[in-house]
Amino acid sequence: MERVIDVRNGRNLTMLTDFYELTMGNGYMKEGVSDTIAYFDMFFRRVPDGGGYCIMAGVDQLMEYLENLTFSKEDIEYLRGKGIFSEEFLSYLENFKFECDVWAVPEGTPVFPNEPLVIVRGPIIQAQFVETMILLTINHQTLIATKANRIVRAAKGRPVLEFGSRRAQGYDGAIYGSRAAIVGGCSSSSNTLAEIMFNVPSSGTMAHSWVQLFDTELEAFRKWANAYPSNCSLLIDTYNVLKSGVPNAITVFDEIVVPSGFRPKSVRIDSGDITYLTKETRRMLDEAGYSDVKIIVSNSLDEHIIRDVLNQGAEIDIFGVGERLITAKSEPVFGGVYKLVAVEKDGRVIPRIKISENQEKITNPHFKKVYRIFTKKNDKAIADVICEHDEVIDENEPLTIFDPVYTWKQKVVTSFYARPLHVQLFSQGKPVYDSPTVLEIRDYSAKETDKLWAEVLRFENPHNYYVDLSQKLWDTRQDLLISHSREYI
Amino acid sequence: MERVIDVRNGRNLTMLTDFYELTMGNGYMKEGVSDTIAYFDMFFRRVPDGGGYCIMAGVDQLMEYLENLTFSKEDIEYLRGKGIFSEEFLSYLENFKFECDVWAVPEGTPVFPNEPLVIVRGPIIQAQFVETMILLTINHQTLIATKANRIVRAAKGRPVLEFGSRRAQGYDGAIYGSRAAIVGGCSSSSNTLAEIMFNVPSSGTMAHSWVQLFDTELEAFRKWANAYPSNCSLLIDTYNVLKSGVPNAITVFDEIVVPSGFRPKSVRIDSGDITYLTKETRRMLDEAGYSDVKIIVSNSLDEHIIRDVLNQGAEIDIFGVGERLITAKSEPVFGGVYKLVAVEKDGRVIPRIKISENQEKITNPHFKKVYRIFTKKNDKAIADVICEHDEVIDENEPLTIFDPVYTWKQKVVTSFYARPLHVQLFSQGKPVYDSPTVLEIRDYSAKETDKLWAEVLRFENPHNYYVDLSQKLWDTRQDLLISHSREYI
Repeated sequence: MERVIDVRNGRNLTMLTDFYELTMGNGYMKEGVSDTIAYFDMFFRRVPDGGGYCIMAGVDQLMEYLENLTFSKEDIEYLRGKGIFSEEFLSYLENFKFECDVWAVPEGTPVFPNEPLVIVRGPIIQAQFVETMILLTINHQTLIATKANRIVRAAKGRPVLEFGSRRAQGYDGAIYGSRAAIVGGCSSSSNTLAEIMFNVPSSGTMAHSWVQLFDTELEAFRKWANAYPSNCSLLIDTYNVLKSGVPNAITVFDEIVVPSGFRPKSVRIDSGDITYLTKETRRMLDEAGYSDVKIIVSNSLDEHIIRDVLNQGAEIDIFGVGERLITAKSEPVFGGVYKLVAVEKDGRVIPRIKISENQEKITNPHFKKVYRIFTKKNDKAIADVICEHDEVIDENEPLTIFDPVYTWKQKVVTSFYARPLHVQLFSQGKPVYDSPTVLEIRDYSAKETDKLWAEVLRFENPHNYYVDLSQKLWDTRQDLLISHSREYI
Repeated sequence: MERVIDVRNGRNLTMLTDFYELTMGNGYMKEGVSDTIAYFDMFFRRVPDGGGYCIMAGVDQLMEYLENLTFSKEDIEYLRGKGIFSEEFLSYLENFKFECDVWAVPEGTPVFPNEPLVIVRGPIIQAQFVETMILLTINHQTLIATKANRIVRAAKGRPVLEFGSRRAQGYDGAIYGSRAAIVGGCSSSSNTLAEIMFNVPSSGTMAHSWVQLFDTELEAFRKWANAYPSNCSLLIDTYNVLKSGVPNAITVFDEIVVPSGFRPKSVRIDSGDITYLTKETRRMLDEAGYSDVKIIVSNSLDEHIIRDVLNQGAEIDIFGVGERLITAKSEPVFGGVYKLVAVEKDGRVIPRIKISENQEKITNPHFKKVYRIFTKKNDKAIADVICEHDEVIDENEPLTIFDPVYTWKQKVVTSFYARPLHVQLFSQGKPVYDSPTVLEIRDYSAKETDKLWAEVLRFENPHNYYVDLSQKLWDTRQDLLISHSREYI
């Protein structure tokens, strides 16, 4: 067992970085450009699962990371041992003090392709270094919050419980995955640590092993009802739901729970034909006088299966969703990228672009500001407009927005208000933003999602929400494209 | 910001558990059965991606977790606040001492569906509690090691570098994902922390941002060669690989690297038509006298794309593989489960079974021992035989193995040796196993994979490796099935 760091007792994530961030840092310093002020955008190009939007998440953890950036003596020793880093660079790291400005879209906000979710401005040696962790943090939580938002919408108001810890991709996949699932709208998580860390309710009752431990299912149910008469929830599919699980549950409700002065809470079904079994279970419970007992279902669910079983008339009150949520199984990668968009020279901001043979991979240059445009009529969001950093949208003038590729697709907007999309997280390295609680973020997210048109909310083939460039930024981009094209193509 | 625990300074994962492990624990105690000795198997039912086998991983982290199981005062306070746990249970947790026996298949071993990867024997209150973390740990690392093994095989001896940290599902997804990728055969990881924690080489050079920072690509390459003349690797696709990247690289090799007395190392291509670009790049480098300069490729690769581009004659020396490896994108869930298989009564081991309408979900009961059978002729693995715990396979007698479903499919094996598959990790709560290093595990894994027949190694439609039951265990299972079937169906 060779580990140097015990992750449970003093974990330092500063070195969770792609090694090239360090070779570049050392290179910037060697070439005398490490203090050049650079601007980076973190953004994504495509919504997973063909959806219409994503839900921003992970800002609180990003701040935690940036606030705690420190290289330990051991880190420095390790780097020295690689034999490629200058002493000047190592001593810079040893005395590292974060100095960047950082802006981000608040957690829970619906976000769209090609707009910056995080903007970093600072000495390139620093703004570069934080790339890996910005991407890792935002990519992961935004992926899961987005998936949770879809699943919760499919459940049409029924609570969705996050059950996936055992199938998560690593411990933090479970921990921050639970957090992101709540941001996306889940009611609670089975993960106990998530309650301790994020003050989000955790819950759970019994597994099949409880039932198997005893000689019969009936005995197992009796024991459980004895232990938890006031909060009796039974897992009824260990042997046979309708022939054994439901009748035994009713027996125990009659025999123990009701005589103790309580109402039983729920039954859970974790396998089999959900639609058929829940309809029959509902009928049997109702006939026995237990129409108030909830039916919980939890078997490889996602937004599509939930929609289907509800369409089929399944009688479900609560969904438990596991592996397909906690790993975003249908599309488990959130492809956020972090690109240099400008540098400062003599106090002026010079935009930079990354060309590609792939049209979609060409970046939007420059230090930006994004406005979300809402119509005053019903507060629905109409479009996001990406501007240069010093542009102001005048709400009293008609606003012309246009597609950045098919520029003849234009629209003049009146009677609107424009809300800047970003908040500032750090000012010259100092934190200046106080994260809301996870439950506050969940409420905010639900409200902001409601401001999207129904056409954008569709699971399949949603309307493409407009993310446009201001005329000024469009001109800047066009100029850069033309000059690079003349040079290289 | 509401967190109680700072994950970077004193992380305790004991509470990373599904809440129901705690409600069951409390229930076992209330009902006086918490000391009942129970046996649990952790196993999986299906190989991801339609492959022929998985690569076991995560044992070292599982041991670390089990060795450090402790409930802090804050954990106990939190649980007390839930108002459903008895003081007897809380005081048990406060004085928790792990007492179980644990066996596992060593990391790096090829493993197959339905055989136990981990076996736990102990008081049910403990053997139950560790479920979530056993599954989380083994599911995650086995998933990634298995995917890495596929990708590395596709590369046919060329080094595969793990590049995926930024797209991992959470910090541990990156950290332990890197580790598992090395177990599965990757040469190194871009994740610096992985080198520090697991003593596995990390590496990396430059990003597009380095190139963009300077006014021209040529200037950027010159600066890099000045900073790293002895180890010069250039990213050549920021603007145009063939018109700009390769010519500029050659200029800088000629101008700076060679005159400094070094040979340039490599060029990297991260976008575009890999086959065409690498062939042309190879030709241009060769013509300029740089046939020793390696070509690294890294753009959304997986085993299928690697196989395809190599078949097309792409000139690639090294692969960098990111998101599709670190998230096992094509199938991001490893469906390991943890099932009660036996209990002790009056010192006798009583097998237990979980029935399901789904044939594949019916469990194999009993406390088990697994033998891997190798033919003496060429040391290839023929079958795994799952036995009851006290069975011994006599290598001097012919061994009849048979399919557990189609029992007429039989085979008599002679001239074989039988190797027990498990090692013991804990004896009555004490660790008794010393994990090899990650690099040792990688070597062992490569050797064990070589002992599988080529038909089992295929990416698609591999031969089903035999995982059979001993006659004794088969009889036990059949008896339990018949008795449950009479009772419930």
